[in-house]
Amino acid sequence: MARIAPVNARGTRDFLPRDLVRRNRVFALLRETFERYGYEPLETPAIENTAVLEGKYGEEGERLLFRILKRGRELESGVRALDALPADERGAASLARSLADEALRYDLTVPFARVIAAHQNALVLPFRRYQMQPVWRADKPQRGRYREFYQCDVDCVGSRAMSVDAEMVAIHCEVFTKLGFTSFVTKINHRGLLRALMEACDIPEEQRGAALTAVDKLDKVGLEGVRDALAKAEIADAAARTLMEMISVSGAPTETIARLRPLVGERPDGQRALDELGAVFRALAEMGVPDERVTLDVSLVRGLGYYTGPIFETVLTSSTLGSLGGGGRYDQLIGMFSGRELPCTGISFGIERILDALDEQGIALGEAVTTTQALVPLFAPETMAAAFALAGELRAAGINTEVYPEPRDLKAQLAFANKKGIPLAALLGPDELAAGAVVLRDLRAGTQRAVPRGEAVAAARATLGME
Amino acid sequence: MARIAPVNARGTRDFLPRDLVRRNRVFALLRETFERYGYEPLETPAIENTAVLEGKYGEEGERLLFRILKRGRELESGVRALDALPADERGAASLARSLADEALRYDLTVPFARVIAAHQNALVLPFRRYQMQPVWRADKPQRGRYREFYQCDVDCVGSRAMSVDAEMVAIHCEVFTKLGFTSFVTKINHRGLLRALMEACDIPEEQRGAALTAVDKLDKVGLEGVRDALAKAEIADAAARTLMEMISVSGAPTETIARLRPLVGERPDGQRALDELGAVFRALAEMGVPDERVTLDVSLVRGLGYYTGPIFETVLTSSTLGSLGGGGRYDQLIGMFSGRELPCTGISFGIERILDALDEQGIALGEAVTTTQALVPLFAPETMAAAFALAGELRAAGINTEVYPEPRDLKAQLAFANKKGIPLAALLGPDELAAGAVVLRDLRAGTQRAVPRGEAVAAARATLGME
Repeated sequence: MARIAPVNARGTRDFLPRDLVRRNRVFALLRETFERYGYEPLETPAIENTAVLEGKYGEEGERLLFRILKRGRELESGVRALDALPADERGAASLARSLADEALRYDLTVPFARVIAAHQNALVLPFRRYQMQPVWRADKPQRGRYREFYQCDVDCVGSRAMSVDAEMVAIHCEVFTKLGFTSFVTKINHRGLLRALMEACDIPEEQRGAALTAVDKLDKVGLEGVRDALAKAEIADAAARTLMEMISVSGAPTETIARLRPLVGERPDGQRALDELGAVFRALAEMGVPDERVTLDVSLVRGLGYYTGPIFETVLTSSTLGSLGGGGRYDQLIGMFSGRELPCTGISFGIERILDALDEQGIALGEAVTTTQALVPLFAPETMAAAFALAGELRAAGINTEVYPEPRDLKAQLAFANKKGIPLAALLGPDELAAGAVVLRDLRAGTQRAVPRGEAVAAARATLGME
Repeated sequence: MARIAPVNARGTRDFLPRDLVRRNRVFALLRETFERYGYEPLETPAIENTAVLEGKYGEEGERLLFRILKRGRELESGVRALDALPADERGAASLARSLADEALRYDLTVPFARVIAAHQNALVLPFRRYQMQPVWRADKPQRGRYREFYQCDVDCVGSRAMSVDAEMVAIHCEVFTKLGFTSFVTKINHRGLLRALMEACDIPEEQRGAALTAVDKLDKVGLEGVRDALAKAEIADAAARTLMEMISVSGAPTETIARLRPLVGERPDGQRALDELGAVFRALAEMGVPDERVTLDVSLVRGLGYYTGPIFETVLTSSTLGSLGGGGRYDQLIGMFSGRELPCTGISFGIERILDALDEQGIALGEAVTTTQALVPLFAPETMAAAFALAGELRAAGINTEVYPEPRDLKAQLAFANKKGIPLAALLGPDELAAGAVVLRDLRAGTQRAVPRGEAVAAARATLGME
């Protein structure tokens, strides 16, 4: 038999059952919470036309697209077209455009915008949707960074109401609480406020991007570091000083908002931003989100350029892992395909980061390392029918039950269960059959007991802690 | 705003919530059943090295691979290599090899075999796994055939025991029963039996492929059709006649086996095949699979060349939709990467076909068209806190509850719920708040009733039929 090396594509992973037990538990908890809040699932294909993806992710992003090679005659004519290219235009980017017109999904936002435009008549607004699917980016693989990874987005399109922005934060809070994180906080800010503050500091339009980038680093480099970054960006001293004061305002949200009002002054957009922040925090309180889980952080910027209103980011306060997710309102992006502006707000969950954080914080999410809960060993051909019947009853009672494929030395069968991490073995051999009993062996505790055959299922459920 | 056409890649689909409610219910039922039988989840990346995929799917299959275009310098040097190719070697296949060394998953079997080889030490044998993931094939799209579609495979590697083959059939039977199909049967045959019968008919080795292809069409073209096909394949008349008699043997499995024994004669492999079929049917009876759900069908062949033992296929008896899935034992395939032969048996579920069949048979799988179960409308800013509190309680009781984003005309909010197919609205406006009540409006029935605030959650669950 010719041997081919069983090697994964670079930067990709196989998920064995042991990995998936934990991953799927996190995924299920996310889905369940989203649906509890009335968010509906959406799925889009892995493959998109490059016309849909191009011009959305910048030059760097486009370099990282996994493009699909044309096939058949289209490929042949694409290659002929290359022959006509002058040597200085044969860089990878222009080659890629001749040889591919499809590529793999790079994020979930662009496909979402495409779906909204394509299915306008089938969708009822406001439309709350979540999407959890892999995306592909040909980044240099490194520890914790893969070329295929899941993204998880929750968005509501079609409403300008601040209650929806608050709901995003409430969902973040509920998910992270349910996952078992105890020390996290969601920072909230507003793009309109940041813009008004820049104006109030007389920072000229063309310097604002650099100034925001400097401000955004506050939690990593501290006030000193921000001051240096502002100086490096050649922000005027006076402006930098005023800005530093503004982003240092802190305290309870209502107080912070009150202190920011005079700083914003007579800028209607800025005052409206403060009104909206007030509405978000009011709704959060009404929704029962604990005060200590949310903070108004004037230094929060969020990298992406498309945000227009409130922005959020959740961080672990006891870790350097950084953000577990974030989002904000983006009222102009979703119309890129429909040509019709549609208000939208959303958050994402950094799934891979969350899984790392669970590890770091020692949160196990249960002790199971396999979905299988019970093994029924086989003793002899004559007892197989009884063993199959027992397995059937255990399954009907909701216990995931594996039957060993054939009669074999019991020790070997129990060693198999132990190696797999199956917590329970239900033994029904010739002796048990004669005695009308089943022996339940708790493989974690290393204990066992015989129970009457008729009570075996209930006793198995009890041993497994299934109420 | 520049308008880009929101067009899907060819042959791919968006799944809107309405589609996913049904799809996800089928997926969940499959997963749950597989795990009940002790099968564990496995997931592999969408992208595989072409070295892993090539040589597995035949020339036709390789033409249909979605290959990933190389990037950056590798792409540039790939294109330079093309320039050196003589004109007559610049067909699509050789171009593809120069320009791509990765491709999208084409099936789930090859990645499974790769995983078994790559993670030999982490996996405990026998290893039962299921895998439900999309695959990609650049087939010409047509009604019911897509370029991205889900496959669903259930396999057990590492055991030669016939109880596992029987278990595959039992799982098929359980899934199709739970889905609500009432008229289906799983046909069972054995590749070793077919081989022995061909020998017994003196059909020469080189004609056996053609003969099997003819026999495989029995249920589509009838005995007459098979006779014609055998003649066309130039099978000798006497041999064809004997073969026709053999594949017409039918009846209860034990009788069929007894009648086949003399036809197989002194061919040990053939007699062993009959022993194995006997063991499969015995185990099926012991597992409680109803007799009418399984049949020994000597004309079942199954296309794929790699089967070596029992083979299965489940068909709807009241439909022309054909097979809902099938499988068999393949003891030589899984070792293609490890160089070590490992026995394996498995079945697949034709997910897209099953969804079509549910439609055809009028099986709705519940009336829900959205995952959302209740809408809490908003009446006025003063009642929002009470509405959020009610929504929180409904969610805590397991009811998927959406809050309308802002106060608005009630009629419009109920129209929204109706359009989305949300079955229940829980009204808590100023009047209800004053009266200490909640009005539950059953939007399917068009009826409503007021209940005391403290009983609202229990009453909502009852209205929704939640126990």
